[in-house]
Amino acid sequence: MQTLSGGKIVEKDRLDPWGTTTVKDYSRLQSEFGIEPVGPLLPRFKSPSPHLSRGIDFGQRDLARVIDAIDNNKPYAVMSGIKPTGDFHLGTKMTADDMVYFQSLSKKGKVYYAIADIEAYADNGLSFSETSKIATKNVADILALGLDPDRAVVYFQSEEMRVMRLATIFSRGVTNNMLRAIYGERQIGLYMAALVQAGDILMPQLPEFDGPKPVLVPVGADQDPHIRLARDLAARYHEEFGFIAPSAVYHRLMLSLDGGQKMSKRTEDSLLTLEDTPQVASRKVLSAFTGGRDTVEEQRRLGGRADICPVFDLYRFHFARDDEHVKTVYHECTKGIRLCGECKLEAAGLVKKFLADHHKKRDSLMKDAVGVIEKSREYLALKGKP
Amino acid sequence: MQTLSGGKIVEKDRLDPWGTTTVKDYSRLQSEFGIEPVGPLLPRFKSPSPHLSRGIDFGQRDLARVIDAIDNNKPYAVMSGIKPTGDFHLGTKMTADDMVYFQSLSKKGKVYYAIADIEAYADNGLSFSETSKIATKNVADILALGLDPDRAVVYFQSEEMRVMRLATIFSRGVTNNMLRAIYGERQIGLYMAALVQAGDILMPQLPEFDGPKPVLVPVGADQDPHIRLARDLAARYHEEFGFIAPSAVYHRLMLSLDGGQKMSKRTEDSLLTLEDTPQVASRKVLSAFTGGRDTVEEQRRLGGRADICPVFDLYRFHFARDDEHVKTVYHECTKGIRLCGECKLEAAGLVKKFLADHHKKRDSLMKDAVGVIEKSREYLALKGKP
Repeated sequence: MQTLSGGKIVEKDRLDPWGTTTVKDYSRLQSEFGIEPVGPLLPRFKSPSPHLSRGIDFGQRDLARVIDAIDNNKPYAVMSGIKPTGDFHLGTKMTADDMVYFQSLSKKGKVYYAIADIEAYADNGLSFSETSKIATKNVADILALGLDPDRAVVYFQSEEMRVMRLATIFSRGVTNNMLRAIYGERQIGLYMAALVQAGDILMPQLPEFDGPKPVLVPVGADQDPHIRLARDLAARYHEEFGFIAPSAVYHRLMLSLDGGQKMSKRTEDSLLTLEDTPQVASRKVLSAFTGGRDTVEEQRRLGGRADICPVFDLYRFHFARDDEHVKTVYHECTKGIRLCGECKLEAAGLVKKFLADHHKKRDSLMKDAVGVIEKSREYLALKGKP
Repeated sequence: MQTLSGGKIVEKDRLDPWGTTTVKDYSRLQSEFGIEPVGPLLPRFKSPSPHLSRGIDFGQRDLARVIDAIDNNKPYAVMSGIKPTGDFHLGTKMTADDMVYFQSLSKKGKVYYAIADIEAYADNGLSFSETSKIATKNVADILALGLDPDRAVVYFQSEEMRVMRLATIFSRGVTNNMLRAIYGERQIGLYMAALVQAGDILMPQLPEFDGPKPVLVPVGADQDPHIRLARDLAARYHEEFGFIAPSAVYHRLMLSLDGGQKMSKRTEDSLLTLEDTPQVASRKVLSAFTGGRDTVEEQRRLGGRADICPVFDLYRFHFARDDEHVKTVYHECTKGIRLCGECKLEAAGLVKKFLADHHKKRDSLMKDAVGVIEKSREYLALKGKP
């Protein structure tokens, strides 16, 4: 993955799940890393999610396998997880939205949700009582976004020895070269985290969970290395565990409110969290970077640049009433009909309304979140020793 | 650790816990790796074990800290473990002997014994029911060798999330360079196993187990890299966990019955196991390589070479009646008084008697072994979530 250029070693673009990858060219992702476009599969969805219809979920691997399971009323899993270090933000909400949508497509869809509390301690110094509180709120957020609690298994990394066992087994089956090819040269801590994630992704196919099945992992485009590793390992351990390659659906990364490439937990004011008060969120939206021109005159004449505008992303990714609304905003912006001030005001209004509603729902679901976690714990305990 | 020699890169000797290190020069171990001699501490033992009095335990790190705890009636731990892949052999018996001896020196000494069942699966394909059976027998072996079950905690790697948690934390605190310096360039699976072992070694100092204390790890000389890693990590995480550097006592490696440098599970007929019938063991001893000369005449004249003789090692390391007996055998051998045939016959007799006795004891202790494991499991469960 390294090329010599003018005597200097230049690392070629490699997707970096831990960094601040900029994903400017999603079609390159397809040609270079083998992520397939979602488009050809769209007709197979009776009512595509906003992520699908708006091209937010742009790529996939083996998504057809999951759609087949849905069509044939066969079991499948949707797998995701979080390091419980803070509030849900709009980036994590996207993964949750995908999770909820793909769970909803069939009664045979079951969600597995991993809470990486050991890593939250190892990386961020958060105690288990802190991460437990955060995780409960995170789960309530997902419930408020529509998760069906009756088909969800939520587990803590600190309690799920099956995952650690898989990670240990996998550590014997990978080579350093294989990890380097996927992730670049990294410290062992990151490699170990990667193997644990592969354990999370493949756990739903263990015999205790009724064995091999299609598993969909909804992720941001930058997380593809983890998918590739899990798929490599599925092949490598196919004979032993019967694993089939996990499927993935990839969503685009939202622009940061300051105009940066990826909304992330790392820069606080660049992102909206589901915990922001409507007022705080509104303030952040109103002070966001936009794709507007330098002067009103220029903007009327040339139109705004919606494609680099995080405020437009708010409409497109989350808060537009429907697809038509997204199109209208895009049209009005790029034609110079709509100016940034009014556009921000409208967006701020939508965000405020969403958050007020969400907080009400979420607060009423805190007990349910505790319930899901407890029920999952009992369910997993019944599965016995791995 | 690499030096250029005549244009070729030559890897300098590095202790290899996973290989077949030959340890010819124990004093070099001391000068190069900083292992201290045991000798100066011998006067502090009221009744030194055969390992101590016969120079089998030749080296140590911070052993004085453990002796201090014993002298001052303070708590300390003795930590060891095994990958449950088969029968105890004379090499593993040596570690068990040390464990039993150092536990016996004070009522405040508590043994922690780790059973690496996940690794037995990952590396050797053994199922948990297989490893559970093997481990129970291994524990019965240690009980028969004298372990006090009331001050022993036996745990399975597949159940002890505390260790996995520590390994995960440690994975963030080590660098690849640090691991390479200790172990050489290895695949990640071995590095991960090493971090898990560091977790085993440091677990007895967690708050659940009454916090920081001297911990003695009895090991073969080739296992020193694991000790160094655990000591490095103890220092690195001193502030967070209060860890103090674990102590170690190092025993010499027995010669293999075929004359090789290390008795190991890898070459079956080169070793005696505690499972061998007295007959099989006797046959192995009688057909062993010896330090004898080519002819009787030569041996009478020059004497035997006890120092390279695995049969002499049987006396010295395990089966001599007492230290005097070891000296007698050595003297008679090297002076040409004793020939290999008679010497082997005597050794075979001692081995047969030991095994017959051991089997009787061990068989009568199988239930106690199950009991120790069950009691440990309850004890650890009461400690709650890590």
